[in-house]
Amino acid sequence: MAERYYEPGRLEAFSDGVFAIAITLLIIEIKVPHAGEVTAAGGLWPALWHLWPSYLAYLISFVTIGIMWANHHAISHYVRRVDRAYVLATIGLLMSVSFVPFTTAVLAEHLPHPESRTAATMFYGAWYVVVAIFFNVVWWAGIRGRRLLGKEVHEQGLQTISARYRMGPIGYLVSVGVALVNVWAALVVHASLATLFALSEREP
Amino acid sequence: MAERYYEPGRLEAFSDGVFAIAITLLIIEIKVPHAGEVTAAGGLWPALWHLWPSYLAYLISFVTIGIMWANHHAISHYVRRVDRAYVLATIGLLMSVSFVPFTTAVLAEHLPHPESRTAATMFYGAWYVVVAIFFNVVWWAGIRGRRLLGKEVHEQGLQTISARYRMGPIGYLVSVGVALVNVWAALVVHASLATLFALSEREP
Amino acid sequence: MAERYYEPGRLEAFSDGVFAIAITLLIIEIKVPHAGEVTAAGGLWPALWHLWPSYLAYLISFVTIGIMWANHHAISHYVRRVDRAYVLATIGLLMSVSFVPFTTAVLAEHLPHPESRTAATMFYGAWYVVVAIFFNVVWWAGIRGRRLLGKEVHEQGLQTISARYRMGPIGYLVSVGVALVNVWAALVVHASLATLFALSEREP
Amino acid sequence: MAERYYEPGRLEAFSDGVFAIAITLLIIEIKVPHAGEVTAAGGLWPALWHLWPSYLAYLISFVTIGIMWANHHAISHYVRRVDRAYVLATIGLLMSVSFVPFTTAVLAEHLPHPESRTAATMFYGAWYVVVAIFFNVVWWAGIRGRRLLGKEVHEQGLQTISARYRMGPIGYLVSVGVALVNVWAALVVHASLATLFALSEREP
Repeated sequence: MAERYYEPGRLEAFSDGVFAIAITLLIIEIKVPHAGEVTAAGGLWPALWHLWPSYLAYLISFVTIGIMWANHHAISHYVRRVDRAYVLATIGLLMSVSFVPFTTAVLAEHLPHPESRTAATMFYGAWYVVVAIFFNVVWWAGIRGRRLLGKEVHEQGLQTISARYRMGPIGYLVSVGVALVNVWAALVVHASLATLFALSEREP
Repeated sequence: MAERYYEPGRLEAFSDGVFAIAITLLIIEIKVPHAGEVTAAGGLWPALWHLWPSYLAYLISFVTIGIMWANHHAISHYVRRVDRAYVLATIGLLMSVSFVPFTTAVLAEHLPHPESRTAATMFYGAWYVVVAIFFNVVWWAGIRGRRLLGKEVHEQGLQTISARYRMGPIGYLVSVGVALVNVWAALVVHASLATLFALSEREP
Repeated sequence: MAERYYEPGRLEAFSDGVFAIAITLLIIEIKVPHAGEVTAAGGLWPALWHLWPSYLAYLISFVTIGIMWANHHAISHYVRRVDRAYVLATIGLLMSVSFVPFTTAVLAEHLPHPESRTAATMFYGAWYVVVAIFFNVVWWAGIRGRRLLGKEVHEQGLQTISARYRMGPIGYLVSVGVALVNVWAALVVHASLATLFALSEREP
Repeated sequence: MAERYYEPGRLEAFSDGVFAIAITLLIIEIKVPHAGEVTAAGGLWPALWHLWPSYLAYLISFVTIGIMWANHHAISHYVRRVDRAYVLATIGLLMSVSFVPFTTAVLAEHLPHPESRTAATMFYGAWYVVVAIFFNVVWWAGIRGRRLLGKEVHEQGLQTISARYRMGPIGYLVSVGVALVNVWAALVVHASLATLFALSEREP
């Protein structure tokens, strides 16, 4: 009873589709200021400005998922075939990524409210811990036993990436802790992690 | 007047797109707790916890559709060409899959309410019976007369898959019956069917 | 200043993406019955049954767009290169197809109301006239001067398809006229047109 | 520590996906007239007519993004490999394009209201300035140092495109200024820019 291998092409295309949809759905959580409220509130410009938490949450989530997509994309540089465990791990990762529009909307809704913004920021960061863990599970499913890898892959390259990916859950866990003290500092941690993962894509 | 055959590539890409969108749209049915309600209800954490039926329904539907996608993906291992009947059957399958975000939202809305959760769970399960029947129709449209199959396909492999797919409508029908007695047991049936189909992908 | 030609691959993929998203977005217009209303209205089953106009509109639109996709797909059997006019015509077609979730939601909302359902059904049908005209424009942009066609294409095959596509605007115009007399008869016209286009795909 | 290059295929597919979703999501911002309101307002036809600002905003945005997609598509005629900077610039472009359904909904909501339509049209135009700047950043990231270009690319062709793309931010800035004087004239500027970019795609 041999394990069956698939070409990874369709799984990649499906994953790219889910990433693309999740990232684009972020926008539908930003609510348009209605004409009635706007005249009461002193015009459209202040009403649009008032939505800054939504813009900020949109920006952080879009860039974070975009860079995750680019790094996920990098995995397929190494993983040349996929088996059932890899497919299931990827479905788990996609499930966690597709949930981000919800955590982003929670963050945007509660960021202006001092009494709930700490919880919202912790929830937002904690979910990225889950996403980052699924990222590691996909990577582990890809490299374990080296059966799914291309022949020319060097052990050292794998370890560099493994070390980098392991930073994900830890980094987002730090953001959760920082949010307990200061919400804005936690968002700086999110921006820093996105930057770090964007730059660290350099050397495989 | 000969029947025309197509390469299956674009139908696969279209199907993958619909699966990817249907699975990602599940999230927009989860409603963000508003700032006003939250302070009244004792904070954001209880309000987020209160959404557990939405999370549960999201999780079951995402994994179920994800595994259906992976199994649908497996069909194309056998079906090498597509004809009109196969295209129409696939449109029917996609129609049924795209409806799942609605049945999921019905389940999530009514799961906490004892007076309507039995009906919601039966409705949710009954729709998967429809999806599973369309799955069988696509498979039958693919294998009948063997005209669309690759030449190296063994009869035994086809029969193994046919038997496995036939379990789908029966399994979801069981979940509908179980829901009449106990809603939570019916959800365990759903989780079990997802697990079963995930594992049974092993041997073609 | 020579006209530039493109390979049609990316335009096809983009079109398939827009078709797939428009068809899947149909579901988000169906509103979930809330727990409060349901207990007042005698349970969930009658409330779910009460949504039959939404299900009917979803079914007709999904199948209609699905078959349009399949027929659009058939165009690329003939059109091997694309120029600017063809790209612009395709953007127009996609614009009209993406509007269908709105006309579908209008139909579903007003179908149960005798005072507005005639207008809703005429609006629904009239928009398909627009879609069908864009379909013809894309086809004309593809075959005019034969510059974008494969070399082996026979004149007779083109004329058969041209005649079939010309039936689209006429057929949907008939549905608009029929809606003036009887709404349900107009929906039967829609179902008949979908069936006709599904069957007529047979011979190129 | 060498810079890694990727094949552009997956980035293109991902970009096409985001463009396709953003363009299709425009429709969900158009709100269906409810049965109750409609009978009060003199029937469905006037209620549907009353939505003309939504149709106009939908039309302008769909065509604008559609033509942007076609031009973005043209970039890949030149850019044969992608590096990290190009990937990040593309994520920025996609972030700006995905935001357009929001600016479109703001325009549609406020166009009928004299007191807020100037601000809405300026906001709408100003965001396209941002989109057009990201477009230029992607182009610059693609051509700088010529390392990502195909070998047969002529310097003159690049300069023609650079000049054309530079017109984008300027043109949309003009639309913002015109909106200060007259909202409708600003929308004519938008239509003219779309036409201009559609036609200028001709010669590379």
